[in-house]
Amino acid sequence: MKCRVCRQRAVIDVPRHNANFCAPHFLDMCRRQVTRAIADFDMLTTADRALVAVSGGKDSLAVWDMLGDLGYTADGLYVGLGIGDYSDVSAEYARAFASERGLKLIEISLRDDYGYDVPTATAATRRVPCSACGLSKRHLFDKAAIDGGYTVLVTGHNLDDEAAVLYGNTLRWELEYLARQLPVLPARDGFPKKVKPLVRLSERETAAWCVLRGIDYLVEECPIAEGNKHLGFKAALNAIEAESPGTKTAFYLNFVERVAPLLAGHALPDDKALQPCVRCGSPTTGELCAFCHLVSVASVHEPVAVELITGKGSRR
Amino acid sequence: MKCRVCRQRAVIDVPRHNANFCAPHFLDMCRRQVTRAIADFDMLTTADRALVAVSGGKDSLAVWDMLGDLGYTADGLYVGLGIGDYSDVSAEYARAFASERGLKLIEISLRDDYGYDVPTATAATRRVPCSACGLSKRHLFDKAAIDGGYTVLVTGHNLDDEAAVLYGNTLRWELEYLARQLPVLPARDGFPKKVKPLVRLSERETAAWCVLRGIDYLVEECPIAEGNKHLGFKAALNAIEAESPGTKTAFYLNFVERVAPLLAGHALPDDKALQPCVRCGSPTTGELCAFCHLVSVASVHEPVAVELITGKGSRR
Repeated sequence: MKCRVCRQRAVIDVPRHNANFCAPHFLDMCRRQVTRAIADFDMLTTADRALVAVSGGKDSLAVWDMLGDLGYTADGLYVGLGIGDYSDVSAEYARAFASERGLKLIEISLRDDYGYDVPTATAATRRVPCSACGLSKRHLFDKAAIDGGYTVLVTGHNLDDEAAVLYGNTLRWELEYLARQLPVLPARDGFPKKVKPLVRLSERETAAWCVLRGIDYLVEECPIAEGNKHLGFKAALNAIEAESPGTKTAFYLNFVERVAPLLAGHALPDDKALQPCVRCGSPTTGELCAFCHLVSVASVHEPVAVELITGKGSRR
Repeated sequence: MKCRVCRQRAVIDVPRHNANFCAPHFLDMCRRQVTRAIADFDMLTTADRALVAVSGGKDSLAVWDMLGDLGYTADGLYVGLGIGDYSDVSAEYARAFASERGLKLIEISLRDDYGYDVPTATAATRRVPCSACGLSKRHLFDKAAIDGGYTVLVTGHNLDDEAAVLYGNTLRWELEYLARQLPVLPARDGFPKKVKPLVRLSERETAAWCVLRGIDYLVEECPIAEGNKHLGFKAALNAIEAESPGTKTAFYLNFVERVAPLLAGHALPDDKALQPCVRCGSPTTGELCAFCHLVSVASVHEPVAVELITGKGSRR
């Protein structure tokens, strides 16, 4: 197995490019894909102040690393979700990455700063864990970006993530969601611009980037996300990709290029009478935003250990 | 397990309707679904002269039976493809069905009438078997409908068939194909109106219809279609359907309702300078139509036994 570029010994195969790469040329390939995504979708410039949503996993550390590598300025934001050991360990990876590189990592703790954690919110709301978790992160990322004067919020969503969400929305042709599934969401009143520079890289490739760049990251998947449909959609796409390499890329990028423009008129209206939340000031359609409502429900609930949720999360 | 309607013992469960049915009420459910598809998409009326494309399998015999049962007038057309025993046996099922019910079955034989068969055409064209087979059937069905003065051509495509084709086209967002994937294609110069009354029934349900109505049909799948991607797409959808009953129906019907209208402008132009084929008179963009070209290539090739193709068909 030889590198496509230099014919030296390859360390990784990339079936959808029908190519193998040595370490330096694999890293170059990743840089090219990210550079191209940033350029094709006008994600950011070196004049931007970027905030990266950091989980301590491979994708968020890879994108933070790559932005620095490519000359962009980016701070990190870590939200402590209180999912037992999983969260404790993920925080350590995020802090180690930042301190070794002299990068600024902002930290928020759901429990310390808002009086709840994801297991407790799950029990309090009686919904799947990913619901309270996603709502909390979206709100806190948006708020930190706006409050900190950042011009763009960066997330580590990779090709597998985006293709799996697209797959789920396509199975039921949820036009409102499909219309918004883009690698860039522009800033609008009270919300920051959001970008996903890793949409042209698979999760296997972001993991390889971390390994080859000496980045330690949390390998485990979230223990309470197990059994969610998103993971089932990833498995379905992986089976198709194994048969026909390149299908996943074509599925996602052809959608973005050919179909999303046709759906532009079907997105939910952006500015449906948004007003500031009476408690936190974030834009919302009601009096109290969904996050402040969650805080009010979850913070008065007796704390729930993550082990109690694990069984729940794997239930369909 | 009790019938949803009469609470007598049920003989079949229909998970996507979350219901079980006894034999008479299952047949009623099938009639309702077909009646609804015919009405929703203006497929045909009792004033139409319908021609059913009959293969001897469950779907084509079920749709022929159901049309008669619902008061429509329909003759059958069987095309002998020359796929060894498979074709011999399928012809017997088609003939038995027609003669037992006093229905008119038109027969065409690729070998006797056009000097080739599907295995030979496969070898002559060096393409997958389904390519020559599909081209031959489309041409001969269209021609027989036009020449016979039929007002509508009926095929037995069921929900699984349509959802699998949609799935394949969606994975690559083939807009030109997606735009034409409708349960009705209107008549246009030289082509008959084409309709698919079974799009609201799964293949398990058309099989059950046949069993309960005492219709003998060819159970075996085509021996040279094995390994084609269509079957892989069916398997992928079945896995999703087993997890979330109703997904397949939502995928297909939501597409037809919500998305197909958005793509209307993306279909390949219908009348791109069509002119009569110099040999057979069918509308074509070139001098010789694709079917007459196939005949000219395949009919001079030495006959090829089906066994020689079976290995080829299972290759990806």
